[in-house]
Amino acid sequence: MASTMSEIKVGILGASGYTGAELLRLLNDHPTAEARWLTADRNAGQPVGSLFPHLAHLGLPDLQRLDDVAVDDVDVVFCCLPHGLTQKVVRELPETLRVIDLSADFRLRDTALYAEVYGKPHEAVELQERAVYGLTEHYGEAIGKARLVANPGCYTTTAQLPLIPLLKARLIDPTRIIIDAKSGVSGAGRAARESSLFTEISEGFHAYGVATHRHGPEIDQCLSDFTERPVTVTFTPHLVPMNRGILATIYVRLQPDATVDGLQAALADAYRDAPFVHVLPPRSLPATRHVRGSNNCLIAVHPSRVAGEAILLSVTDNLVKGASGQALQNMNLMLGLDETAGLRGAPLFP
Amino acid sequence: MASTMSEIKVGILGASGYTGAELLRLLNDHPTAEARWLTADRNAGQPVGSLFPHLAHLGLPDLQRLDDVAVDDVDVVFCCLPHGLTQKVVRELPETLRVIDLSADFRLRDTALYAEVYGKPHEAVELQERAVYGLTEHYGEAIGKARLVANPGCYTTTAQLPLIPLLKARLIDPTRIIIDAKSGVSGAGRAARESSLFTEISEGFHAYGVATHRHGPEIDQCLSDFTERPVTVTFTPHLVPMNRGILATIYVRLQPDATVDGLQAALADAYRDAPFVHVLPPRSLPATRHVRGSNNCLIAVHPSRVAGEAILLSVTDNLVKGASGQALQNMNLMLGLDETAGLRGAPLFP
Amino acid sequence: MASTMSEIKVGILGASGYTGAELLRLLNDHPTAEARWLTADRNAGQPVGSLFPHLAHLGLPDLQRLDDVAVDDVDVVFCCLPHGLTQKVVRELPETLRVIDLSADFRLRDTALYAEVYGKPHEAVELQERAVYGLTEHYGEAIGKARLVANPGCYTTTAQLPLIPLLKARLIDPTRIIIDAKSGVSGAGRAARESSLFTEISEGFHAYGVATHRHGPEIDQCLSDFTERPVTVTFTPHLVPMNRGILATIYVRLQPDATVDGLQAALADAYRDAPFVHVLPPRSLPATRHVRGSNNCLIAVHPSRVAGEAILLSVTDNLVKGASGQALQNMNLMLGLDETAGLRGAPLFP
Amino acid sequence: MASTMSEIKVGILGASGYTGAELLRLLNDHPTAEARWLTADRNAGQPVGSLFPHLAHLGLPDLQRLDDVAVDDVDVVFCCLPHGLTQKVVRELPETLRVIDLSADFRLRDTALYAEVYGKPHEAVELQERAVYGLTEHYGEAIGKARLVANPGCYTTTAQLPLIPLLKARLIDPTRIIIDAKSGVSGAGRAARESSLFTEISEGFHAYGVATHRHGPEIDQCLSDFTERPVTVTFTPHLVPMNRGILATIYVRLQPDATVDGLQAALADAYRDAPFVHVLPPRSLPATRHVRGSNNCLIAVHPSRVAGEAILLSVTDNLVKGASGQALQNMNLMLGLDETAGLRGAPLFP
Repeated sequence: MASTMSEIKVGILGASGYTGAELLRLLNDHPTAEARWLTADRNAGQPVGSLFPHLAHLGLPDLQRLDDVAVDDVDVVFCCLPHGLTQKVVRELPETLRVIDLSADFRLRDTALYAEVYGKPHEAVELQERAVYGLTEHYGEAIGKARLVANPGCYTTTAQLPLIPLLKARLIDPTRIIIDAKSGVSGAGRAARESSLFTEISEGFHAYGVATHRHGPEIDQCLSDFTERPVTVTFTPHLVPMNRGILATIYVRLQPDATVDGLQAALADAYRDAPFVHVLPPRSLPATRHVRGSNNCLIAVHPSRVAGEAILLSVTDNLVKGASGQALQNMNLMLGLDETAGLRGAPLFP
Repeated sequence: MASTMSEIKVGILGASGYTGAELLRLLNDHPTAEARWLTADRNAGQPVGSLFPHLAHLGLPDLQRLDDVAVDDVDVVFCCLPHGLTQKVVRELPETLRVIDLSADFRLRDTALYAEVYGKPHEAVELQERAVYGLTEHYGEAIGKARLVANPGCYTTTAQLPLIPLLKARLIDPTRIIIDAKSGVSGAGRAARESSLFTEISEGFHAYGVATHRHGPEIDQCLSDFTERPVTVTFTPHLVPMNRGILATIYVRLQPDATVDGLQAALADAYRDAPFVHVLPPRSLPATRHVRGSNNCLIAVHPSRVAGEAILLSVTDNLVKGASGQALQNMNLMLGLDETAGLRGAPLFP
Repeated sequence: MASTMSEIKVGILGASGYTGAELLRLLNDHPTAEARWLTADRNAGQPVGSLFPHLAHLGLPDLQRLDDVAVDDVDVVFCCLPHGLTQKVVRELPETLRVIDLSADFRLRDTALYAEVYGKPHEAVELQERAVYGLTEHYGEAIGKARLVANPGCYTTTAQLPLIPLLKARLIDPTRIIIDAKSGVSGAGRAARESSLFTEISEGFHAYGVATHRHGPEIDQCLSDFTERPVTVTFTPHLVPMNRGILATIYVRLQPDATVDGLQAALADAYRDAPFVHVLPPRSLPATRHVRGSNNCLIAVHPSRVAGEAILLSVTDNLVKGASGQALQNMNLMLGLDETAGLRGAPLFP
Repeated sequence: MASTMSEIKVGILGASGYTGAELLRLLNDHPTAEARWLTADRNAGQPVGSLFPHLAHLGLPDLQRLDDVAVDDVDVVFCCLPHGLTQKVVRELPETLRVIDLSADFRLRDTALYAEVYGKPHEAVELQERAVYGLTEHYGEAIGKARLVANPGCYTTTAQLPLIPLLKARLIDPTRIIIDAKSGVSGAGRAARESSLFTEISEGFHAYGVATHRHGPEIDQCLSDFTERPVTVTFTPHLVPMNRGILATIYVRLQPDATVDGLQAALADAYRDAPFVHVLPPRSLPATRHVRGSNNCLIAVHPSRVAGEAILLSVTDNLVKGASGQALQNMNLMLGLDETAGLRGAPLFP
């Protein structure tokens, strides 16, 4: 469909947040896609550089009101709107447009569960039925054909990538999965909240949403696609005083016949051809800084001090593989482009 | 024994590291104790302020070589020397001196286990037999009579305080304890290592010592004091880009008849009169920044998403309750002083 | 007036911000003063610990509405209200109360200048006439007798302490003073603003308020007290990704007969008996971390590469000597207490 | 010379430091250049990923000993060796090789001054005579023809870019230039020093090398190229607790007939066609985070509070425009490639 001659035209709904800005950074590296319009209702009329000075010199279109853009003048729309608003906006988009939604609005297939977790009824039930969950490495075929992709959450992406191959291969006990996850602060977005102030976060560490974070049900749903019975994971998120990055430390129980070496082999095998998921040598120590700014996910397997158990480590950049990077990867699949287009940049360190 | 008239005289072996400096900061607040001599062989002859400018204006004695100090001109010695060297030095100290050792050299009662974990034979076996483990809240009586106290590790203190009362009350399964711990960087000390550089740590997060960290056996030993059979915990430390603080997220399995409320009640009961351990209301979210610079430990209990399980959160300042503060608390007990002397300062935030 | 027997009773107006919290931390160390009431209109009825968990265990009174407190049941009031509101509140306080105002509302003696700088007319002109500027080391005598003290700004304190003795001694040219100042983020307060988010500040550095910051006129006013003709300084503030601390790098031109050694000597002489201002040896490199949490100001003098010029370095903790600590120091003077009461704590490092 | 068909082959001497790693990150984005060999004597035989895990998956050659590489199998050599060693190594390289040196070894034209500043005699005087100073925007023509380019220091680049056009246009007084500069920590390199530890830098700020930093003479030399008489600047570097970025705040005195608007116009004019130097609208506030990871330099002009003076702000990423990025930009010029090749990536924020 796409060629180097004909540019892919992209629209971004809600370009005033961090995921929108990150999409623009990545699109700048994309050989054939280009942002055609950007909406941000409260900042309409402003240049992107007034909100994001780091993007000031890229020749991007100014921000516009949604009502003012020629919505269908693009091939694909990225939706970076807040949870809740998204369903209403997406259901009004022309049916011809491909849509990649970065909010949580289409991630939970069970709309009753959605209502419970997000505290309000789903407002686009018929669209939900056709939405494809966008964990690229495991739903790639469906993503390629999808009209609407629900891009996964950052925690969920980081936790699911090491777990899915092990559950598929029946190497670990699906009833005993503990995910202790730690995230940088950009996951909280750009909203001005006291709890996100520099002074409230720097030089400190804490857990939040213990047993109640909304990514818990999302992880359950996705992992359950690869197990016989529904899974309920233990999931605890924490906030790290850094901008970007997620590390998930995952405690698993081996199935009776499984070994730690077997886990390593199954993961290596599963991701042998995946351009962004790298299974490190046994007992490696991946760090979030090793993937900063990139679409990579690094995975390591460790034996536990307790026999029959193992520890998985997984890191991503929450704004890239955990959000805008995976969204672009999904776009590439949906449009038949090279999966890595726009995503080949090396991580930034230090 | 002590009165406001008669000063307690203190000596510090190895005052050039962070735990030594922190002792000096806390002693500055102590109403009756005073540093009489400070050793630092490589920096002998220098004023403390040349190593630690923040302590320059406190009127402290200059650093000296160990051979040059009148060792027995003090009531109590804090030993802040590196692991390994400590045993040799402490065994040469006059028997009349009370000693609080902040290294790991006397923490493991089983000297064979010491040799295995630390990779060399124990060099003061007879002293080891008389050493008392210095987790103040649970070994206080023995500490009061001890000549040699082995001050616990920072991770171990943080993890043991919430676990011990629950194990004593048989509310949790001792075979299923997972400790996911996160520490600030000062725990690595002041040695110049590439892995401790600002550029290698800032804006990143990683696990280390997975299943192999030396605090694992120490936690096992201590918890086993309160259980019928020896315990082996799962323990994973991580490094947080902050100077101070430890948070332990602890996953436990309830005993058949136990409840999350029961855990809360048992902890509240255990620490009702403890001046430094505060059990927060159910589902609280303690942060390391809430205890920064203080000797406090904050504990919270959460239900898990998985029935029959619970999550414990515990925070300390690794240099205070996790090291020098607990050492001072132990000194207070050993000398019959008010347990909180020198330790009443409120945390520093932001 | 005060004795160890009779407690000094303290009220705090606007205790929900960082300067209020810092006052409470410092008062916890004060031997004879105690917080009697705390106001915070929006958070009335809540315990202090709900806003500031680090202060939860100090036995403090709950927050109240201003209308609900027995205002005159205290000896002294600290006013930590926002700029603008302060004038209205302070002018209603009983005349018998001593007041230390931490806002900018009474710092500028010239109310016309106030109106120009703060964009609205002064609302307590008669009070302004009696307000004493609270730079303790240089206005101490007047502070001791004052009813209303205008506590200086954080930048102004840090810049003025090294400059005043040099201007008094006519060693530097008052027409050529350049103050390049760098502050931690707590100076911006606890208000939820996008520009104060962790993600907007961490891993970055920028100047702000170039030539327009409100502390410029305040510095001019104070320095002019010590010169023959009014002074206009160059003043540029910058934001450092850290919680606390200010460093001022000050470029001065020597008077024809002055020398860099003379500057050093004049400063050492001026602060010989000052308990908190320490003039370091020539060419020292004071760091904000050397004063963190303390009321200290460290000053160093350097020759410049350019003949006839010198560079002064000055550091404080903006929340202590730059705000609440100096306020407490002023209270001590106003009430005839030891100037250092509540302020003897050593800095916290690392 | 170069075409998309024929790859440019690159060698890197001393690839184990941050500037080497940054070159590899940027080369990964370069359309026609490719690293052919990498030396790192102490780490010879190791894959790049063992030193820099973020570069592990780029298919780079392993590190080798200098003696083991086919030095002349490349078109251009980047030298990232330590100061001092560089002169000896570079003078042994085949005359046919183009060399871009990132150390300070060839920056000072006056070898007597070099000896004074660096404390040892220059060891490649004849090469020095032919070295071209690599501030791309102002020495571009000579760089294009050079065999050996001395890549400028990070502070010097950041300070010189705003100053040179103003000196050329005689708009500012060359005898009154004060450069107050602030740098992230990566400028100190990867050597394990106590002063570079996370705990020694985080949550603090300090000046260093006041009036003695080696970039002072380098700035003098370069600016003097554009003035009638030799210049001596005041230059004070500071360390910011962040990984990357430099901000220079520069205080200048206008020439009698000059205006602040005139400065703005002269700078805008000078850099109208420069792809990486962006002169912002008057009174803008550039931040280091706006250029992180990019080769951009942002410049802003402000009036001062003092008549006849102005303040310039300039920001770069010290590892990109201040080191490896400018080196690559110079390579592009030397080889007749598009100046922006490999350098079009947008900054990474947050």
